[in-house]
Amino acid sequence: MRLTLLGTGAAGGIPLYGCDCRDCRQALANLAQERAPCSALLEWGEHRLLLDAGLMDLHRRFAPGVLDGILLTHFHVDHVQGLFHLRWGPAAPVPVWCPDDPAGCADLLKHPGCLDFRPEMAHGRAWQRHGLHITPLDMVHSRPTLGYLFEHGGRRLAYLTDTQGLPAHSLALLQAGPALDVLVVDCSFPPGAEGRNHNGLEQVMAMCTQLQPARTVLTHIGHEFHRWLRTHSLPGGIEAGHDNMVIITE
Amino acid sequence: MRLTLLGTGAAGGIPLYGCDCRDCRQALANLAQERAPCSALLEWGEHRLLLDAGLMDLHRRFAPGVLDGILLTHFHVDHVQGLFHLRWGPAAPVPVWCPDDPAGCADLLKHPGCLDFRPEMAHGRAWQRHGLHITPLDMVHSRPTLGYLFEHGGRRLAYLTDTQGLPAHSLALLQAGPALDVLVVDCSFPPGAEGRNHNGLEQVMAMCTQLQPARTVLTHIGHEFHRWLRTHSLPGGIEAGHDNMVIITE
Repeated sequence: MRLTLLGTGAAGGIPLYGCDCRDCRQALANLAQERAPCSALLEWGEHRLLLDAGLMDLHRRFAPGVLDGILLTHFHVDHVQGLFHLRWGPAAPVPVWCPDDPAGCADLLKHPGCLDFRPEMAHGRAWQRHGLHITPLDMVHSRPTLGYLFEHGGRRLAYLTDTQGLPAHSLALLQAGPALDVLVVDCSFPPGAEGRNHNGLEQVMAMCTQLQPARTVLTHIGHEFHRWLRTHSLPGGIEAGHDNMVIITE
Repeated sequence: MRLTLLGTGAAGGIPLYGCDCRDCRQALANLAQERAPCSALLEWGEHRLLLDAGLMDLHRRFAPGVLDGILLTHFHVDHVQGLFHLRWGPAAPVPVWCPDDPAGCADLLKHPGCLDFRPEMAHGRAWQRHGLHITPLDMVHSRPTLGYLFEHGGRRLAYLTDTQGLPAHSLALLQAGPALDVLVVDCSFPPGAEGRNHNGLEQVMAMCTQLQPARTVLTHIGHEFHRWLRTHSLPGGIEAGHDNMVIITE
């Protein structure tokens, strides 16, 4: 599997509007230092799944037919906003697998256009797509949210965002198999910060103790944590993700 | 007054996702031929108001403090989606004058962040901002929507989108003064098309007969109308807007 982190930012992204800190000024001057809305592209063989759709230039990145479909973690706007204009095109129906959250976001579910929403996923209900084994996992967030365990070619990669900790049944499911090759996980806050709905670094470290992944990559990085990373080192086995980072499992 | 059309597209924009027509292919290859979400920048003296906020790079276009504020026509997502991430910054409160539509869009009103929503505008309730005279006008759309009559330096410019026709009381208000110098108006559909919630060219022509504006500029241009424009001429006094078009009233 090849996972490209397309965006690694929290809801406000980097640069944060109106912030005059050195990092935000640098990111404003240099697109390569931005953190875009949290999302990723998973590729295996000739196939591609987009994980979340907060980027606004999806029509430029992915010609129709290039994606097997889109997998949503949840319906917060920074994870779905790229779908708003995409839907009005005459493209062939694009499968969008998502949690069963009838409220959706704005009028997306009411007016899906070319998007074929499939709210048929639930915790532990594993399915396959062209040899990729996908297991949805409940997360702990402010609305129905699923993380995903992907298995292919004997490798295991978990993409767990947005979440604050993990429910016991999700932890148990991840612990039931061999250790993860890669854990990509929501880490929005630096140590000591009071956060809600998202992990801080301590929570991620506790998760690493429980899951013993070979490699952990942090995403959904908030502004304060982004700044913290400039002057601190992460524990061994844990890396900060960055936009366009490529993670290969085999 | 100086009005810059920042976006002149209907909800799907140009290029339309998955469309293989010549115009969409050209726009995909050349950013300058895109039609971005319908929005504009109004400048007078040293002051600036953003009209609608569907562009996703507002943080790059407008440093904090550069705008006097944002004026929304309505809360459809293609008119407000640029606010979703902007709101999380530490910028000083940004006034956002808007219609009184308690549903807003997604969680914008619930979590406004640095946006200072002011749903205090209503039809005919004129107000001033640094010498600019602003009169909100009811439109005919699928949710509460206001057009605007701007008056400054003896000139009159109306920005009327999104709308299908005009209510009698809005028409009467516009007819009560001297003829408009500029009418910028929703024209989503070509002649003969069956449209809803937006004008077709015939409706705009009827409006021109009623209002006798010196100059009419079309915006919120849909895909079929965009293509129609390539092979047809518009009646005298009517021009198709394009992204980054500048209109000066004095």
